[in-house]
Amino acid sequence: MKSVKAFAPATVANMVCGYDILGFAVNEPGDTVELILNDSGVVTLDHISGDGGLLPKDAQKNIASAVVMQYLSGIGKSQGVSVKLYKGMPLNSGMGSSSASSVAALLAINHLMGEPLSRVQLLPFAMEGERLACGSAHADNVAPALLGGLVLVRSSNPVDPIKLPVPEGLFCTLVHPHVDVPTSESRRILKERIAVRDAITQWGNVAGMVAGFCTNNKALIGRSMEDIIFEPIRAMLIPQFYEMKQKALELGALGFGISGSGPTIFALTEDKLVAEKIAKALPDILSVNNTHADSHVCTINTTGAAIL
Amino acid sequence: MKSVKAFAPATVANMVCGYDILGFAVNEPGDTVELILNDSGVVTLDHISGDGGLLPKDAQKNIASAVVMQYLSGIGKSQGVSVKLYKGMPLNSGMGSSSASSVAALLAINHLMGEPLSRVQLLPFAMEGERLACGSAHADNVAPALLGGLVLVRSSNPVDPIKLPVPEGLFCTLVHPHVDVPTSESRRILKERIAVRDAITQWGNVAGMVAGFCTNNKALIGRSMEDIIFEPIRAMLIPQFYEMKQKALELGALGFGISGSGPTIFALTEDKLVAEKIAKALPDILSVNNTHADSHVCTINTTGAAIL
Repeated sequence: MKSVKAFAPATVANMVCGYDILGFAVNEPGDTVELILNDSGVVTLDHISGDGGLLPKDAQKNIASAVVMQYLSGIGKSQGVSVKLYKGMPLNSGMGSSSASSVAALLAINHLMGEPLSRVQLLPFAMEGERLACGSAHADNVAPALLGGLVLVRSSNPVDPIKLPVPEGLFCTLVHPHVDVPTSESRRILKERIAVRDAITQWGNVAGMVAGFCTNNKALIGRSMEDIIFEPIRAMLIPQFYEMKQKALELGALGFGISGSGPTIFALTEDKLVAEKIAKALPDILSVNNTHADSHVCTINTTGAAIL
Repeated sequence: MKSVKAFAPATVANMVCGYDILGFAVNEPGDTVELILNDSGVVTLDHISGDGGLLPKDAQKNIASAVVMQYLSGIGKSQGVSVKLYKGMPLNSGMGSSSASSVAALLAINHLMGEPLSRVQLLPFAMEGERLACGSAHADNVAPALLGGLVLVRSSNPVDPIKLPVPEGLFCTLVHPHVDVPTSESRRILKERIAVRDAITQWGNVAGMVAGFCTNNKALIGRSMEDIIFEPIRAMLIPQFYEMKQKALELGALGFGISGSGPTIFALTEDKLVAEKIAKALPDILSVNNTHADSHVCTINTTGAAIL
């Protein structure tokens, strides 16, 4: 029977000021999905590991198998598929966990079906996976997970993903405090209306960050990484957020912020040693109040999900 | 007596979605300021032409002479200066008329004083000129008038101007309908709070436009030139705005929008012939309802204000 394994990486969405429109992929952690074609005519979910028993076992509800069903229906094929999901990152962490599962599954099934769709054409299926996972079909995790690098989602409807240049030699430290912040809750607490004045400040920083990436101006990237609208609200859900921020910047981070909707935070640096210092110092800060955390020092994944 | 003439160009601020943060300079029209040093110890305004008699003749209130006073006070010098202002563009047109006057005057006086300040250091004085002219110290006209090209004003306080790359071969058509739209009025009618959803759409487009300019992607520039927040309101002050927009896009414009706070509109094209067609067709549309208009086909001024 034909089978394949695919890997899709964790992603950092929002990137401080780029709420809902920017995200980048990191080389690790990530999820692996294995698909085996069969003659049953149905999609079954036959293995999940690494989820601590928390993900749905129903093939209709688990997003790895659900997006395979939607994909097959989308291309008008009926095909038996056995789905095996190997989670390589924590759930509800803000690192694009659901996105990694759906993107790995979509890349794998598209590969097995002879690649009738391009990566960009897979995006709408992955976005539907996000709707299933958290109620909103956003693309700022799935687009970088699929395409790699830093992706601007200029528009969500129709989706318009633009892969931006990324300066060489950037490192990302991810620190995941073990506290519970569901995406839906983290979206719910945000305001629905904002002052025009604040919106202008925000799009000035968005423009600065995009210009910094496109023109290899790391200082500009750093000073543009400011979010006056969402961070002050979401930071309340993350223990010792401002202590960690101050420490990361003191240690030399270009910028610091919440990854996706948190609780994972990320620091961008241009020095691996600084990235490693941050990966050690921030969990130490959290441990004072008995919050456990794991941390990763990553590079930017410029190629996206991959067939293994 | 030492004297000098300086020219500063018209500028297109806002650039559709980049409200308050983006602007570019065009090669014409523009204002010329002549300064002659003397021993009087005071700054006098001795000539104005091209303003139709509308600008203040009081040296404290006319912005060309007022910024010279502020500059001299800023660098701690007392100096007699005779100021002559030759307006080369209409007032209250949305083409950065006040900005051209103050920038030309500042470049001239800085030149005569031996250039103690850099162009970027002249910016705060020019911004104060804007406050005098329209009540708000914004930099999105004065920064491109001074520095040339396309300038991102990431932050206004402290001011952080970033000159962005501009693709070669862009043309700008400016059409100035002869109707009265004072900047202060045009700002007053804007909303103070906006939906987060709309702000996200806007900064997606801002990011797309900046990425388009930085990576020489003209199609991306074009499809990012959308403003769902301010244009629908300000368009009401401009006769036949949507007819002109449709015509410009039909003729092949990359994008179309209001220049500054209007009533001038601008179209960006990558073909001089298209730019010229638009410069003819739009005044024709306006003339149906007896609105007169003048139009210019310009290139991007990449070097900014200049000593003549």
